[in-house]
Amino acid sequence: MSGSGLFITLEGGDGSGKTTQAELLGEWLAGQGRTVVRTREPGGTEVGVEVREIVLHHRGDIAPRAEALLYAADRAHHVATVVRPALERGDVVLQDRYIDSSVAYQGAGRVLDPEAVRGLSEWATEGLVPDLTVLLDLDAAAARGRLDEARTRFDRLEAEASDFHDRVRTAYLGLAEAEPGRFLVVDAAQPVETIALAIRERVGALLGDR
Amino acid sequence: MSGSGLFITLEGGDGSGKTTQAELLGEWLAGQGRTVVRTREPGGTEVGVEVREIVLHHRGDIAPRAEALLYAADRAHHVATVVRPALERGDVVLQDRYIDSSVAYQGAGRVLDPEAVRGLSEWATEGLVPDLTVLLDLDAAAARGRLDEARTRFDRLEAEASDFHDRVRTAYLGLAEAEPGRFLVVDAAQPVETIALAIRERVGALLGDR
Repeated sequence: MSGSGLFITLEGGDGSGKTTQAELLGEWLAGQGRTVVRTREPGGTEVGVEVREIVLHHRGDIAPRAEALLYAADRAHHVATVVRPALERGDVVLQDRYIDSSVAYQGAGRVLDPEAVRGLSEWATEGLVPDLTVLLDLDAAAARGRLDEARTRFDRLEAEASDFHDRVRTAYLGLAEAEPGRFLVVDAAQPVETIALAIRERVGALLGDR
Repeated sequence: MSGSGLFITLEGGDGSGKTTQAELLGEWLAGQGRTVVRTREPGGTEVGVEVREIVLHHRGDIAPRAEALLYAADRAHHVATVVRPALERGDVVLQDRYIDSSVAYQGAGRVLDPEAVRGLSEWATEGLVPDLTVLLDLDAAAARGRLDEARTRFDRLEAEASDFHDRVRTAYLGLAEAEPGRFLVVDAAQPVETIALAIRERVGALLGDR
């Protein structure tokens, strides 16, 4: 599915610990003698950075379909120029966010049909599916707890944010349930080392299969 | 299909006279008391200009699917923010290039499946189809003749350009044949006023139907 390399994606809401776990897993893989490419979407290429610039800094709204197409363009270029070449070299690609992010956030935002958005990404990537997707799952209460550490008031905006977080989480869990073979769902409220160990076990098994 | 306005697109190779005919038709329509919005793709919006900037000035190649998605993003934003609002106001939109350009050039370039590219654009525009598409058809010999007026040598690059022009033209004529009700095919080698008259007749009939 992904050449001789291994394609691992990390998914989850902001603050779920994706960056920390990617670092720990990358170090462990390097210790196993694997060449690791750490990357992310959006913005994992020069073209992607320019696309991201348009989406984030354009004055005035961007039409929702245009935004989805821009993200798909970023993904197409990233997969063609970074991910596939790395997999063909036999590297392990550790990627922060991929198609599941687009589908889950679109599902939570309720503007566009998530399945249409998935279709764009599948065309963009010529159907490249990760070997493993780690979902760092954090319930709304835990996510709010982390927010509360930094803030004192819990106002309407945060209540809305919490509601949105719930919908993203539900969408992610639905995706994981539909493809249990590809997903590893980890409770992101656990200690960092416990999570890292669970991920290593699964990745180790995948490497052993090759 | 396009609200109470009229959506007219102009298609044809570079140098086929689209700009001149859009000007003449726009003046005539204004004389009939119609509000005319003249626009173009790619680059008909600020977002579109930024997207065009990426496609034209990025150092290094852009993956073909990324390029197609960027053009579709430009189209999505342009239709949502310029074309549809104008049609809803009852204006006449005169547009230089639209979906047929993407399909014809993709068909001539033979990199991506033209029907997949059409699918992207249909999703991008929520299926907005022109009321009339004027195809300014110029055969390769005539196009070459125009080029020869400015240049003296006919070298390999121009031979390749001529071959590409042939393929674009064939693709355009195939699109027109498939939708005779939407297309008006005009021999672009005729005098400017003869062409303008043919277009006016067809547009006048469309306006009379409303």
